[in-house]
Amino acid sequence: MARNTQVAADHHAPPVTRLLAQFVARHPSRGWSDAVEREAHRTFMNWVGCAVGASQHETAEAALGAVLALQPAAQAGILGRRERVDMAGAALVNGITSHTFDFDDTHLKTIIHPAGPVASAALALAERTGSSGRELIDALVLGIDVACRVGNAMYPEHYDRGWHITGSTGTLGAAAACARLLKLDEQKTAMALGIAASQPIGVREQFGTMTKPFHPGAAGRAGLMSALLAQHGFTASAKALEAPRGMMQTVSTKNDWSQITDELGDRFEISFNTYKPFACGIVIHPSIDACTRLRAQGVKADQVERIELKVHSLVLELTGKKEPADGLQAKFSVYHGCAAGLIFGRAAEDEYHDNVVNRADMVALRRKVVATVDDTIDEASADVTAFLADGQRMHVFVEHAVGSLANPMSDAQLEAKFTGMADAVLGAARCRELVAACRGVAKAPDLRALVRLATPA
Amino acid sequence: MARNTQVAADHHAPPVTRLLAQFVARHPSRGWSDAVEREAHRTFMNWVGCAVGASQHETAEAALGAVLALQPAAQAGILGRRERVDMAGAALVNGITSHTFDFDDTHLKTIIHPAGPVASAALALAERTGSSGRELIDALVLGIDVACRVGNAMYPEHYDRGWHITGSTGTLGAAAACARLLKLDEQKTAMALGIAASQPIGVREQFGTMTKPFHPGAAGRAGLMSALLAQHGFTASAKALEAPRGMMQTVSTKNDWSQITDELGDRFEISFNTYKPFACGIVIHPSIDACTRLRAQGVKADQVERIELKVHSLVLELTGKKEPADGLQAKFSVYHGCAAGLIFGRAAEDEYHDNVVNRADMVALRRKVVATVDDTIDEASADVTAFLADGQRMHVFVEHAVGSLANPMSDAQLEAKFTGMADAVLGAARCRELVAACRGVAKAPDLRALVRLATPA
Repeated sequence: MARNTQVAADHHAPPVTRLLAQFVARHPSRGWSDAVEREAHRTFMNWVGCAVGASQHETAEAALGAVLALQPAAQAGILGRRERVDMAGAALVNGITSHTFDFDDTHLKTIIHPAGPVASAALALAERTGSSGRELIDALVLGIDVACRVGNAMYPEHYDRGWHITGSTGTLGAAAACARLLKLDEQKTAMALGIAASQPIGVREQFGTMTKPFHPGAAGRAGLMSALLAQHGFTASAKALEAPRGMMQTVSTKNDWSQITDELGDRFEISFNTYKPFACGIVIHPSIDACTRLRAQGVKADQVERIELKVHSLVLELTGKKEPADGLQAKFSVYHGCAAGLIFGRAAEDEYHDNVVNRADMVALRRKVVATVDDTIDEASADVTAFLADGQRMHVFVEHAVGSLANPMSDAQLEAKFTGMADAVLGAARCRELVAACRGVAKAPDLRALVRLATPA
Repeated sequence: MARNTQVAADHHAPPVTRLLAQFVARHPSRGWSDAVEREAHRTFMNWVGCAVGASQHETAEAALGAVLALQPAAQAGILGRRERVDMAGAALVNGITSHTFDFDDTHLKTIIHPAGPVASAALALAERTGSSGRELIDALVLGIDVACRVGNAMYPEHYDRGWHITGSTGTLGAAAACARLLKLDEQKTAMALGIAASQPIGVREQFGTMTKPFHPGAAGRAGLMSALLAQHGFTASAKALEAPRGMMQTVSTKNDWSQITDELGDRFEISFNTYKPFACGIVIHPSIDACTRLRAQGVKADQVERIELKVHSLVLELTGKKEPADGLQAKFSVYHGCAAGLIFGRAAEDEYHDNVVNRADMVALRRKVVATVDDTIDEASADVTAFLADGQRMHVFVEHAVGSLANPMSDAQLEAKFTGMADAVLGAARCRELVAACRGVAKAPDLRALVRLATPA
């Protein structure tokens, strides 16, 4: 069939499939700064915590039910659970659980959640093949770089069109990480990326359903299988990413190729990864952060007469739910977020349980929150004043919320987030051991001990 | 993130996810005409033959290598091979092999090859769960209807943009067929379609590589897993197909919803399915057909001085290769096709082996073919005149080539095509039994005997 494409095709794209394959196959182990290496460890630990935390969720049960219908071999562990399944199934389920709470990492430039697809595929393969922890971290950094660079090139048009960019680029990141772990040469790595390029996953209409966290899981599984296929001699186009009817021009009219090629091997996108301190949309984070600071300054809920909140217009547009009925609705309520910040000093998954949402003190406090739009306030900021019963006023202005690039979570905060999710699943003692194993992962001879620690005793 | 989509979104689409789910879940068994039922059997048999035929190809070996790395359980057979793998792996490999020769079925309105994804998923699941042959044929008709109706709605814009429409709609068809086999209710069938909607497979840049036949295989596997997930309670958007950021509006700017809703349950798209008599692009078929008719009229290669061919311009644009060096190049040579038609009376996969392409009589004859573009000749037609050594002229005008909708292959021709591919793999006796099993499949209590017959003794 000789038809002309109706979208203007760019016939002069640089050979990014080949360039990325060279990079993934050849870049030296730990060929980056200490800061990049540290961020890789933080990314990995945060991902493990999220996956363990959601491992008993109904989403995990449903996914595992389907995987077990295949009677899989016991090749790889599912974080937080005793079942063992084949590598592909483990990549799928761990990718799903790590994004189930929507509490994982965010590459802010593209709003990709990069660890979900990449770490899920890499850990399952690494455990099975006996790769070292060093090799796993190398694969994670390189895989995330591939996914986020492709995302940078297509964002925002690709996302605006309807793609859940975590899944659509995640397949490539997972394929890259797995190709690296399998030690594929440059040619076969290009084939792995090429096979993955035919499998972009995820549309945004799924947000609010189990299929949203399915996207990183399915991307991880597809990337892992793409690398295995390439290892066994399966072929794809060597221009599968950039050709006029290759993946990128098919799924995005915007393709800024320089985002892939510039400083490749010098600048690492994992440096721009962030971690959510609060289990809700990022737009509410400055307001919650401000309320936790008021609490730290001694403000108590029963003293409060009114809380005045000045925020960016997006906050009320997306999260203006005044009277949330349950945990899911509360995720879209800046009022609930503020009450949680002031009463608990945190807003993790526990603070979004239905019973917390309906507690009398939470209901009373959130009704005292008055939010107004102020166009001088940035999306990353919030201005909050508490009016107390004794006539005192306490004011906090948050310029950069905790968890943003300008104000990242500390290692101690990340550990608290981790144990807040994983303690209940693994017990406190095992959880502490797992934290230590995550911090020392690059020195581990293989991943088996770490996966064992992530399994309930 | 509150971004406006840059593509005009249709907010008033009918609820096609729900309508298709109702149709798939509720349409009565064999609720169609004898003609539809007959076409379903022809589609199934042609698909089995193609899969058996390519079962020893290097593409099959590479795919199977990757699947075996998962140490799959022996749940389902791979047509033409002794290995047994899990359902998902069988759907993948059978989908790949059935499209490896590019010799399978074609829904001409959309150029979807519908059996690849749908039959691959359905047979693997049906064998494993013990479904009857009747249930398999029901699932095949309904699944193909879903894939082709979605294809009709998006074609041609979606294809023009770069999507390999067989894989992008095939996931939905496979999910529908598997939901039917699992007897999912309307609600869970909608979830299966919804989960599948996040997994469109395949870009056209892959044409000419193993990843082209990977598309129907991966679509079949994804559809099967989507149905299993829905069965286990996994959720998706109930508007995953039609919503502004659902699948269809994300992957196509053209969406004619009436193509999905009109005559749903009355008109069946499998009625418009066709089967290739020749193992090459459809555009050459009229010319090859004309040459086989000349042969039937007694023309022999060694009598021929010259063959004059008048064809549509597309023929020389796409298949003008004058001196093909091997089988792959010969697929793009109308000259080779004409020589095969006259010398062998056929142009199946065997006639595209390298040694046939380079046979002295083939080389000599194809050099005597003179092709010219004639704008009065339709794409579906060819005008061929043979000038013989004794001065005779033989003329054939083919209006509708064999294998077209207007001139379908007869059941005998389909059987000859089948045995031409499968005899070498299974032996002639077993192959005859398999043909009978395919013809009687709707009466089979389960699919196990049929799959056994498709396995080398």
